[in-house]
Amino acid sequence: MSSTTQLTKTDAVPMTSGEEMIRWVEALFPICRSITGNGVRETLRRIQTWIPIRTHEVPSGTKVFDWTVPLEWNIRDAFVKDATGRRIIDFHRSNLHVVNYSVPVHQKMTFVELRKHLHTLPDRPDYIPYRTSYYKEDWGFCLSHRDLLQFSEGEYEVQIDSSLGPGHLTYGELVLPGKLQEEVLISCHICHPSLANDNLSGVVVAVALARALANAPLRYTYRFLFIPGTIGAITWLACNEAVAERIHHGLVLAGVGDRAPLTYKKSRRSNAEIDRAAGYILRHLDRAAKVLDFSPYGYDERQYCSPGFDLAVGRLSRSVHGEFPEYHTSADNLSFIQPESLADSLSVCLQVLTLLENNHRYQNLNPKCEPQLGKRGLYHTFGGQLDSGQSELAMLWILNQSDGTNCLLDIAERSGIEFSHLKQAANALEAAGLLRKLDDADTRLARQVG
Amino acid sequence: MSSTTQLTKTDAVPMTSGEEMIRWVEALFPICRSITGNGVRETLRRIQTWIPIRTHEVPSGTKVFDWTVPLEWNIRDAFVKDATGRRIIDFHRSNLHVVNYSVPVHQKMTFVELRKHLHTLPDRPDYIPYRTSYYKEDWGFCLSHRDLLQFSEGEYEVQIDSSLGPGHLTYGELVLPGKLQEEVLISCHICHPSLANDNLSGVVVAVALARALANAPLRYTYRFLFIPGTIGAITWLACNEAVAERIHHGLVLAGVGDRAPLTYKKSRRSNAEIDRAAGYILRHLDRAAKVLDFSPYGYDERQYCSPGFDLAVGRLSRSVHGEFPEYHTSADNLSFIQPESLADSLSVCLQVLTLLENNHRYQNLNPKCEPQLGKRGLYHTFGGQLDSGQSELAMLWILNQSDGTNCLLDIAERSGIEFSHLKQAANALEAAGLLRKLDDADTRLARQVG
Amino acid sequence: MSSTTQLTKTDAVPMTSGEEMIRWVEALFPICRSITGNGVRETLRRIQTWIPIRTHEVPSGTKVFDWTVPLEWNIRDAFVKDATGRRIIDFHRSNLHVVNYSVPVHQKMTFVELRKHLHTLPDRPDYIPYRTSYYKEDWGFCLSHRDLLQFSEGEYEVQIDSSLGPGHLTYGELVLPGKLQEEVLISCHICHPSLANDNLSGVVVAVALARALANAPLRYTYRFLFIPGTIGAITWLACNEAVAERIHHGLVLAGVGDRAPLTYKKSRRSNAEIDRAAGYILRHLDRAAKVLDFSPYGYDERQYCSPGFDLAVGRLSRSVHGEFPEYHTSADNLSFIQPESLADSLSVCLQVLTLLENNHRYQNLNPKCEPQLGKRGLYHTFGGQLDSGQSELAMLWILNQSDGTNCLLDIAERSGIEFSHLKQAANALEAAGLLRKLDDADTRLARQVG
Repeated sequence: MSSTTQLTKTDAVPMTSGEEMIRWVEALFPICRSITGNGVRETLRRIQTWIPIRTHEVPSGTKVFDWTVPLEWNIRDAFVKDATGRRIIDFHRSNLHVVNYSVPVHQKMTFVELRKHLHTLPDRPDYIPYRTSYYKEDWGFCLSHRDLLQFSEGEYEVQIDSSLGPGHLTYGELVLPGKLQEEVLISCHICHPSLANDNLSGVVVAVALARALANAPLRYTYRFLFIPGTIGAITWLACNEAVAERIHHGLVLAGVGDRAPLTYKKSRRSNAEIDRAAGYILRHLDRAAKVLDFSPYGYDERQYCSPGFDLAVGRLSRSVHGEFPEYHTSADNLSFIQPESLADSLSVCLQVLTLLENNHRYQNLNPKCEPQLGKRGLYHTFGGQLDSGQSELAMLWILNQSDGTNCLLDIAERSGIEFSHLKQAANALEAAGLLRKLDDADTRLARQVG
Repeated sequence: MSSTTQLTKTDAVPMTSGEEMIRWVEALFPICRSITGNGVRETLRRIQTWIPIRTHEVPSGTKVFDWTVPLEWNIRDAFVKDATGRRIIDFHRSNLHVVNYSVPVHQKMTFVELRKHLHTLPDRPDYIPYRTSYYKEDWGFCLSHRDLLQFSEGEYEVQIDSSLGPGHLTYGELVLPGKLQEEVLISCHICHPSLANDNLSGVVVAVALARALANAPLRYTYRFLFIPGTIGAITWLACNEAVAERIHHGLVLAGVGDRAPLTYKKSRRSNAEIDRAAGYILRHLDRAAKVLDFSPYGYDERQYCSPGFDLAVGRLSRSVHGEFPEYHTSADNLSFIQPESLADSLSVCLQVLTLLENNHRYQNLNPKCEPQLGKRGLYHTFGGQLDSGQSELAMLWILNQSDGTNCLLDIAERSGIEFSHLKQAANALEAAGLLRKLDDADTRLARQVG
Repeated sequence: MSSTTQLTKTDAVPMTSGEEMIRWVEALFPICRSITGNGVRETLRRIQTWIPIRTHEVPSGTKVFDWTVPLEWNIRDAFVKDATGRRIIDFHRSNLHVVNYSVPVHQKMTFVELRKHLHTLPDRPDYIPYRTSYYKEDWGFCLSHRDLLQFSEGEYEVQIDSSLGPGHLTYGELVLPGKLQEEVLISCHICHPSLANDNLSGVVVAVALARALANAPLRYTYRFLFIPGTIGAITWLACNEAVAERIHHGLVLAGVGDRAPLTYKKSRRSNAEIDRAAGYILRHLDRAAKVLDFSPYGYDERQYCSPGFDLAVGRLSRSVHGEFPEYHTSADNLSFIQPESLADSLSVCLQVLTLLENNHRYQNLNPKCEPQLGKRGLYHTFGGQLDSGQSELAMLWILNQSDGTNCLLDIAERSGIEFSHLKQAANALEAAGLLRKLDDADTRLARQVG
């Protein structure tokens, strides 16, 4: 009854190492993913070798709010050959070379005609850009600007051996039941092809997180989503409105493997428990970590935080999308991420979740004056000394503030005492019969009333 | 349905130039105004040549709350003659020479007797002070301290050819009907004689504002008051209590022609929509403009913001009354004001009112997840680029925040996106059927409930 | 009806001088106090020669919430003799030498055995520490570390001629009835033996405060408690739950005689009227005074601010307990305190209480527009001058804000005008029939509703 749920660094909760996560990224990196198709399925199959996710298939044409599940896209090969028949752009060298969702094409054309379908980044001439055309039938190739400069006038053979037709949108899901029906959502997008940080980093940290939680006694139920960005989140929400109502906290994991410090982006609510918990942990890590205000641009938090849902879902990232030169290019490769960053991201996730798991409200069962700590062995019995340590002070703070309105995080913020110390003190007081943990039914009731 | 009300610099809304406003000031400057009398009537007649105000006459003796409409004061001539018969103080040289509301007098007296009735400013020896004695029967002359020093002992002939008797208090009013009964009040005092900044500047900016609004489609009904200070505002409020309840926003215009930067003084409510709108505009003009907290001292906002009314009326000024040496002296003359300042004051008024006119709340009609902007032509269809421009972001912010509680100004402040950009985006979304403007009936309802 | 309650420096309220308070401390200093026993009784008898407190006796064994009134402790003599029979520790030289609540002992023992019962402060080798063992039967001696170093091996005779048995806990109480049943609590602990600042300083300032208030017309009822720390406050609260509900404001006085600047520690509520009043006074004294946030560690505010009571009781101190080397040692003696500090503490207490006494809410009886101050002689009648003085502005602020929600302190904080000026202005307006003091029944009602 009075234990601390400890999700980090315990025997029960083995931590996946950064190196192992790197190996997982390496296994997933070559696959050509998109928002639908076999690349997603193959990715989910690999993930199933690590954690027992279930896969879901939603048919093309399914209405999901304002959207429709698109046709399924698959690709086998794609190239541009020069007049000599040499593959000067070759899908098999990098799946970024093909505009994702390109319709099939096979024809000869002049450079002038081809040029309209070629995408480069003149300001970063060595990088292949990543481009998609999900909702407009089109085709195209991406290449480095340096390579483009090698093209000469003349005729080229262009082929994209893809298919776009009725099929399914595929996503993976894992539910780890806790004591409560109330859920914590962990969501990551799995639709990007060979990009390491965006978002294989998020995928492998989610996998490692699921492994850690699978071995721990959980207060909350945890739901992991491995979904295509935007349309996947929309599809899931459309198919799971009742489930969404049970989501009390959530994190989108995206871009958590690079060398930059951590960034937490707040939910639309700004001051939700997840926002305060993540802010607290990041602040106390005393690093360059930043907390960003909510904005409706970004990853799938856009959907979770749409006003019709307004879920308390924030986002953990390192470099922020669009703000670094490697973003959505071939430079977001295996050398852009590092094991230390993945391990750190995992650790911080676990610390945030540990805080949520332990962030109870308590009722002081002896609210009139202080209880006599001494007779219960909770206090030094020799009065008159200089202020003794933090444990007594932690107990006094908890007793003083536990009128049923304050959670431990409130008390941590007011007192300046570390959350984990407060939790230990609360455990001791609970064991001594001085404190009653407000069970989660009470919590739910208070939330409805309050 | 989805247009922006634009009150500034459009074909429909011609802007009066600063030079034209200066000419209006020149026409009004010589008139000897007071809180009652023919000077006020003459002033209102001139204003009627520019905008179609109605004049009201309230009889002396009318009870207006704690006050009584005073006797009407008129003056034809006034002088002090020295022993040689020379007019050494002459009302016709400056109407400031006579203490406003002086009772009639005609007698000879020694300098010692006369001295008690002479007012000067020893610290600003070249200025004639402006003095009144509305509520205590008295008479006096004002003159420069330098002139006073020229007086010698001896006998003087003193005459003030004034009358004080039953009559009326006169004020002007113009109502420009808008779509809503809810009103915006623009109020300026017209009781000061030959003082340019205080307050012919306020008068002519109000006139130019009325001209601009007369040609625009209006959401709010606008009410312009040209009233004697204090007693005029009290009289109007006492006679129009039901109308006052319809005033939702208001501005007192006073001292808006001098060279100092603009100053907005907040209403008693501190955070009323007019306070936020004016603060937003002044902040974004990136100038030395200042926003002052409310205080119960000043111009007619004192009455509008009395606790029994507590109207959301702020004040726009440049130099603040009492804080500059020319205040209430002959130095507040035509050279103290300048066309650029008048034009700038007018422009800022129109920007504030434009903001109010367009500051709607909207309901996102597709609140669950984002709507698909692409299929409506509202979005780039080629995904994966670096963050594109402000218009998309503006649309996302509006969609995200439009749960019916936030007005565009709320969204502008939270997002940091310029109000006018947000308004354009809201128009586009409304035209695409994604947003419903909460009509002003809804707004009213929400205000009552909230 | 319109007077200001002035508790400071008036003929009606003679101020006790710092020198007189020092003499009171000198009278009380030698007594060996504890949480029970004859030392407390003797202390209260001396206080009764200055103010008419009643004493209460609560029997040992009485249940008081989670605690039990302890056995009564008394001591007559105590010593340690060396082999030559010389008293090398002698209770009669300092009552700090004996651990307070030591059980009787009389035996010979080796230095090794004795050493376990000796307490010193190696980091402050000249000071005798103050130690207690109220809730664990034990005995011990305290001495300077320098003296300890003089001990040699060998046999010592140890005697503590104390008694610990059924008796009473004794405390003193004085009630000064005011117009209202609502109470202000002044509480100080009287359980420490020969320590001057902690807390004879608090005791004598409380006595002087009671003397000052006894001669003044009071709005609130004042209750003074002279109680043993912790167990005394708990006992009083347990025996007076109904009275506690009437306590609307309170101050614990502890350590108010040393040379450090004043420190006000906020109540658990943080923004109670006493917190705002004390903060206002300390800020306006423009000194090094500090306002500390609430914490559940300290003196008897711990009990008053326990969540089951949550009384608006703050604490006034100079040096903060535990943060100065003399704390709980023989160095907290008569030379550690000074008359100027005691007088200043008394003065500040009276200023805070004066503010509370006068901190009324008023209703503007003429809320629509300003009343005409001039016709009531409240205003200059000669208009048009530069802004005149503070008294008019104070009247305008009070009229503007007195809608029944704001107290004078609210208005002082919003306007920046000194509280005492506002109070004078309110008196003038009340006398003129423009303002109605909301009587305290109204206040009570508003508090319940609001």
